[in-house]
Amino acid sequence: MNFTKKLLAALLTILLCSSSALAQRRAAERVDLLVSGGTVVTMDRGRRVVEDGAVAVRGGRIVAVGRRGQLARRYAAREVIDARGRAVIPGLINGHTHVPMVLFRGLADDLDLNEWLTRYIFPAEAKNVTEEFVRVGTRLGLAEMIRGGTTTYCDMYYFEDAIAEETARAGVRGLLGETVIDFPVADNKTWADAMRYSENFLRKWRGHPLVTPAVAPHAPYTVSEEHLKEVRALSDRLNAAVVIHLSETRKEVEDISAQKGARPVEYLARINFLSPRTVAAHTVHINEGEIALLRRHGVGSVHNPESNMKLASGVAPVPAMLREGLALGLGTDGAASNNDLSMWEAMDYAAKLHKLSSNDPRAVPAEEALAMATVGGARALHMERDIGSLEEGKRADLVVVDLDALHQTPLYNIYSHLVYATKASDVRTVVIEGRVVMRDRRLLTLDEALIRQQARDFRARISKSLENR
Amino acid sequence: MNFTKKLLAALLTILLCSSSALAQRRAAERVDLLVSGGTVVTMDRGRRVVEDGAVAVRGGRIVAVGRRGQLARRYAAREVIDARGRAVIPGLINGHTHVPMVLFRGLADDLDLNEWLTRYIFPAEAKNVTEEFVRVGTRLGLAEMIRGGTTTYCDMYYFEDAIAEETARAGVRGLLGETVIDFPVADNKTWADAMRYSENFLRKWRGHPLVTPAVAPHAPYTVSEEHLKEVRALSDRLNAAVVIHLSETRKEVEDISAQKGARPVEYLARINFLSPRTVAAHTVHINEGEIALLRRHGVGSVHNPESNMKLASGVAPVPAMLREGLALGLGTDGAASNNDLSMWEAMDYAAKLHKLSSNDPRAVPAEEALAMATVGGARALHMERDIGSLEEGKRADLVVVDLDALHQTPLYNIYSHLVYATKASDVRTVVIEGRVVMRDRRLLTLDEALIRQQARDFRARISKSLENR
Repeated sequence: MNFTKKLLAALLTILLCSSSALAQRRAAERVDLLVSGGTVVTMDRGRRVVEDGAVAVRGGRIVAVGRRGQLARRYAAREVIDARGRAVIPGLINGHTHVPMVLFRGLADDLDLNEWLTRYIFPAEAKNVTEEFVRVGTRLGLAEMIRGGTTTYCDMYYFEDAIAEETARAGVRGLLGETVIDFPVADNKTWADAMRYSENFLRKWRGHPLVTPAVAPHAPYTVSEEHLKEVRALSDRLNAAVVIHLSETRKEVEDISAQKGARPVEYLARINFLSPRTVAAHTVHINEGEIALLRRHGVGSVHNPESNMKLASGVAPVPAMLREGLALGLGTDGAASNNDLSMWEAMDYAAKLHKLSSNDPRAVPAEEALAMATVGGARALHMERDIGSLEEGKRADLVVVDLDALHQTPLYNIYSHLVYATKASDVRTVVIEGRVVMRDRRLLTLDEALIRQQARDFRARISKSLENR
Repeated sequence: MNFTKKLLAALLTILLCSSSALAQRRAAERVDLLVSGGTVVTMDRGRRVVEDGAVAVRGGRIVAVGRRGQLARRYAAREVIDARGRAVIPGLINGHTHVPMVLFRGLADDLDLNEWLTRYIFPAEAKNVTEEFVRVGTRLGLAEMIRGGTTTYCDMYYFEDAIAEETARAGVRGLLGETVIDFPVADNKTWADAMRYSENFLRKWRGHPLVTPAVAPHAPYTVSEEHLKEVRALSDRLNAAVVIHLSETRKEVEDISAQKGARPVEYLARINFLSPRTVAAHTVHINEGEIALLRRHGVGSVHNPESNMKLASGVAPVPAMLREGLALGLGTDGAASNNDLSMWEAMDYAAKLHKLSSNDPRAVPAEEALAMATVGGARALHMERDIGSLEEGKRADLVVVDLDALHQTPLYNIYSHLVYATKASDVRTVVIEGRVVMRDRRLLTLDEALIRQQARDFRARISKSLENR
């Protein structure tokens, strides 16, 4: 009897213990990834900065942002990234580039624009741009972007389907626009071919978690009114984004004004080209009326300070655009006109350039520059529901940044620190769609040595192709 | 007999062999260091670039620059640095900074200038600048500069004697100016004290291989005419360089014009302050007549593009200054107004800013930007006989730079590559006065961990000192 009692008591104890353990285990919700510790710079509406914070990720999305202790109790993570002493920021968004052009980095600099284009860039493209070129260049550019903490980029180039494949394979997010233009190019010899390619491209990739396909008419001065209208119709039909160069140079404004009797933005508004799916790169030479037009039509703008300076294009009215609440992102432009893909330099340049140009050292403060590279870029690319800030429900695109390099010492203000002192080389770990694509500076989805070798091979071919022109 | 003959023959052979070996050994001249392989970018008058080159160093000076094979045969080196696949360039010259101010990096940004100075920088200086502050800040700044390939810098601050000691100890070259100003500062409470300190400082360091002492009257608007004349007399007496801020802001030009009836450079020329020992930082707001005056008096100018942009000071007429053959260097300014000490960024900014401001993408080409950071800086600091290029007889200040980071891939043109694509993080090895101060990214003369800790301690003190203002 006594024995039976003891046995029952023991069984009861076991039962209670295991169910309590079970309850505890149930209480700790399972997540895929916990980025734990560090200063979490959310870039949300309240611009919350969480010291000793954490971000929990499941199924490619952020499920919580909060204090480290709190999240550690609430979640059991399959993988933990220790971010103590570091910053955790939203992945940077490079709002405008031509990624394969990294293979032309430094090919021709410091030239008159016409000479640069007609003697170097156009011949180099005509003789070298193939699908293979595009793939190799894209992998090189992606590797550089990941290393620099860029998790989303907006591209315009040829063979964009190959770019999309490489981008998806590397685990990087892209708004990728197939360039269409009124003359024969490497991938499409006629306008009809280009539109067919674009439509197939848009249909193939829509709904993809990483790649958002787009169509990219080159510029108002290289694509006819009729063709621009066709692009708009295609975009309406497939609900696709449209990326375009707009008002980059004074010459463009003069030419369009002469031909169309309106400035470029006015002209595009008049022909009903602008929509809340339009992304306009540069918008350097725009007046107040054009800023209002861009805003009214919900167009996103992307500012490229380094390219605009290096090519002497001019200064976009960024303080006015920000004042008017335009969706304004930041880009590097292609590496042939910058010559890198670092969003850290883009932020530093943006913050400094507009202080100078507006004669006001308070213009574009560090926090605003970081916003342009994150939430602003997300708005400009019409992707703000998914990316741009560290908030519950958004895609898990985040970057862990070292804060203690000598050039970052000491630290007073996290925004200043990130924009004015931090470099691409301080980026430690990069997560896109919940997947770690760089861990402790080691790329996990791309083969650096192979990329370097293939780029060198292309360099030799490209140099040779420009001999005896 | 036969045996004796054989013995003699053998002895003769031994004798001949050993004397031949001796001769060979004598033929190979002994040097301390051979930097061997790589692309040697000399920045000499002919702008010679030697592929697969080498630099031989003895007694702190360059004894030869040439092809690797040639120098390998001619010299037997105690130490060889393998630079194959890399660039070997003259050490970069940071023509203007306030090195201890790295401790204020990011303390206050994006502010109205008056607020920035009177609410942050001046109180922070008043409450924190001690000899210890200066030593810790100097070590931090030196470490950052070495990491970025800067081998010579021109400084203006307080307790410059302590800065000189730290600089010499770290093995860095400096033109170091004790700041004198018409109000009490941390190290000198009266003008008489300041002049006494300066004279002692000049006498103590003259002839030092690394430290060139100077006196640094703060600016024409903070030092009286009488005191500027005293400085000139002291400089004449001791043959010492004079460093000054000049024509940095519009306000300075307006104020001096109102008070002196002449623009700042004209005023300094009129009171006989300018000499071939003067180094003028900024010279932003100068007209053609003032450029001519600077040139006529042999004044060196130092351009600080990032600081001038961030503080909205204006744009120095760099293309005109270069056209007129002014001695023109490049600087970062203090880290409170930049916020780093990277000459790579200074070069990139200089090249891009003047393309924009002159509306000419050919302005300040990459080679010219590198020249400003090397030979131009040497001329501006009146040290061109000793530094600025890789030439026989000059001091052995050189930098080995990696060329194959992803952001540097591919390589078409070495100048473009260095100015537009290379970052401070690509600097591998640094030699100053023939001494290796950084080898394979490891600092040999400074303790990074200790520097970081001491900087963090100061940061806490500085932040506290600014509470409840």
